Amino acid sequence: MPETLPPDSVGLVKPQTVIFDAPLTLQSGRALPSFELVYETYGTLNSTRSNAILICHALSGHHHAAGYHSMDERKPGWWDSCIGPGKPIDTQRFFVVCLNNLGGCHGSTGPQSINPETDRRYGPDFPVITVKDWVQSQVRLADHLGISKWAAIVGGSLGGMQALQWAIDLPDRVHHAVIIASTPKLTAQNIAFNEVARKAITTDPDFHAGRYHEHNTIPKRGLMLARMVGHITYLSDLSMGEKFGREMREKAFKYGFEVEFEVERYLNYQGERFSENFDANTYLLMTRALDYFDPAKDYENSLVDAVSQAKCSFFVAAFTSDWRFSPERSEQLVNALVEAGKRVCYAEIDAPHGHDAFLIPSPRYMDVFSANMNRIADEVNA
Amino acid sequence: MPETLPPDSVGLVKPQTVIFDAPLTLQSGRALPSFELVYETYGTLNSTRSNAILICHALSGHHHAAGYHSMDERKPGWWDSCIGPGKPIDTQRFFVVCLNNLGGCHGSTGPQSINPETDRRYGPDFPVITVKDWVQSQVRLADHLGISKWAAIVGGSLGGMQALQWAIDLPDRVHHAVIIASTPKLTAQNIAFNEVARKAITTDPDFHAGRYHEHNTIPKRGLMLARMVGHITYLSDLSMGEKFGREMREKAFKYGFEVEFEVERYLNYQGERFSENFDANTYLLMTRALDYFDPAKDYENSLVDAVSQAKCSFFVAAFTSDWRFSPERSEQLVNALVEAGKRVCYAEIDAPHGHDAFLIPSPRYMDVFSANMNRIADEVNA
Repeated sequence: MPETLPPDSVGLVKPQTVIFDAPLTLQSGRALPSFELVYETYGTLNSTRSNAILICHALSGHHHAAGYHSMDERKPGWWDSCIGPGKPIDTQRFFVVCLNNLGGCHGSTGPQSINPETDRRYGPDFPVITVKDWVQSQVRLADHLGISKWAAIVGGSLGGMQALQWAIDLPDRVHHAVIIASTPKLTAQNIAFNEVARKAITTDPDFHAGRYHEHNTIPKRGLMLARMVGHITYLSDLSMGEKFGREMREKAFKYGFEVEFEVERYLNYQGERFSENFDANTYLLMTRALDYFDPAKDYENSLVDAVSQAKCSFFVAAFTSDWRFSPERSEQLVNALVEAGKRVCYAEIDAPHGHDAFLIPSPRYMDVFSANMNRIADEVNA
Repeated sequence: MPETLPPDSVGLVKPQTVIFDAPLTLQSGRALPSFELVYETYGTLNSTRSNAILICHALSGHHHAAGYHSMDERKPGWWDSCIGPGKPIDTQRFFVVCLNNLGGCHGSTGPQSINPETDRRYGPDFPVITVKDWVQSQVRLADHLGISKWAAIVGGSLGGMQALQWAIDLPDRVHHAVIIASTPKLTAQNIAFNEVARKAITTDPDFHAGRYHEHNTIPKRGLMLARMVGHITYLSDLSMGEKFGREMREKAFKYGFEVEFEVERYLNYQGERFSENFDANTYLLMTRALDYFDPAKDYENSLVDAVSQAKCSFFVAAFTSDWRFSPERSEQLVNALVEAGKRVCYAEIDAPHGHDAFLIPSPRYMDVFSANMNRIADEVNA
């Protein structure tokens, strides 16, 4: 708990909620009769409404990207390292919007919400949401805020996919797309890890076919396992080695199945904590959105044709130690953008933290990210 | 089911069992009052007893390494590609011994065996076994067979760790150590994957603290998940991509959580099948043996000092696409062997199959493996 807030913080922030009453037809063919989105904003929208940035979150993210909800809050928003006065996404220059995605579990309409047609929780009846669907729901938010064109749409990992989909689907509404530690589609290995996570959840006896709340329980074990396996893929072998090595909890081996190594303790702690704070149906939905993402599919599997739709310029960044979405995957996107004649700047950043590097303010990353965002600020404020 | 056996097969084989009545004191300080080992042999022991090869198995392996148990058997032993007449481990030249490790679930004494002190299954009371313990139990088998010195001890993955430990602990009883796709110790990431697997098993409500048999059940879900996550680490991103890509089960997405992609179907099938055929307590035990393995630990963390004990020559092989135990890990061992002044031959083999490459008879692998084993055969038969 900070007694005073850090000077480069956006300070105390308050989530807002907007209700959209017109039905939203989804890629699956199903429709949501209405939905709510919860979001936060930082900084000030300029008079030409040209300095707005949309932040798209990844699997376990939400609308609280920066600042503090109260003086008692222990930790700031999840991307506080990159959003604030003087930070890469400089709130002295930009008006920043971050929402909790549709289907989420932090306030926007999702599986935990009440289905107006049945007056019970959606639970497993909540429709599967795709990245395209998220973009459509975010268009509603942009309209609500009076933002006809984003200065930039910025996202890491699954967030980067949303930025790319915006650029393809709504070329006139994006000035710049910032796609960090992302990929134009998942590989079989990525899907396989997601499937293990889903299977852990759905085979937990406390899952009750997704109606766990009606049984006054949650599939805690399954969520914990899902997070543990996910967490391994977010870190690099190197960063885990540097953080934990083969360090032992106690001096001598106990020769048993209780925790012996620090890395076990850490992983169990991460899994436990997550399982108490995240909704299992949302986890299923988010991993499926990742699996389905493949913008080339709509263009006869040509990524070049897909990105040819875009009119914005691009900043793509990848991290050397990221084995979940390795630099090769970003390069595939960059090559397609180049072939399509788009303006693109690509940075492969030497960082040891694995996929999580996009959340960690390493100096080189902050430098190139800031330079890129400052260039955008100069353009839109010109 | 082969109607006739392939000409390069060792043919029909029959497991044998040996009972050791003298207590075996384990690294944990506990002791087994007696134990049985089940093993198979292929080829003929020569008159000087100098042509014997010990095959050590990996996590899910067993004594049935080559040939067929009956004409009805659908598949031969797990390393049939490498053991047989004219194969790298040529049964026309070598007498080959392969056992099921102590603690296993294929016939040797393990958690499913009856504890003579209680007359009930050992279950979770079975002591934790280390690689050093396996070596000690294998010494008993060597004595029983009258083999004072192995021409070679050969193993992939966890099997390679046993070969290395033999070379260090019993330098006068090993002529040559063949260590394939292995590592001198696990990294934090390796341990983390093992911990997820163990957690999947131990949090399965059907685990019953390891006494599932007494509840007439097995922790099927947990074992399935353990195998699924393990299986991902045995394959490379590339080989999964080549095998499955993003291939779909049906033409159009169903937008749900049932199987959509081929890789999901495959992984579920592998997990299901394994969970019906492997003992959960053995799985825990095998993964713990992997975690604990660290021969340098007994020599003030100096791998050079550890391998300095060895008197044998070494063949070390690694596969380019193996990200579980990458070539860098084999190189650490090779560098220590070189520094200790040992004779060592190292091959980094270009193969796309990931860690599983050690089981797959790719041409280059078979060539270097054969050349190495033929040289040993020439030496011991000279």
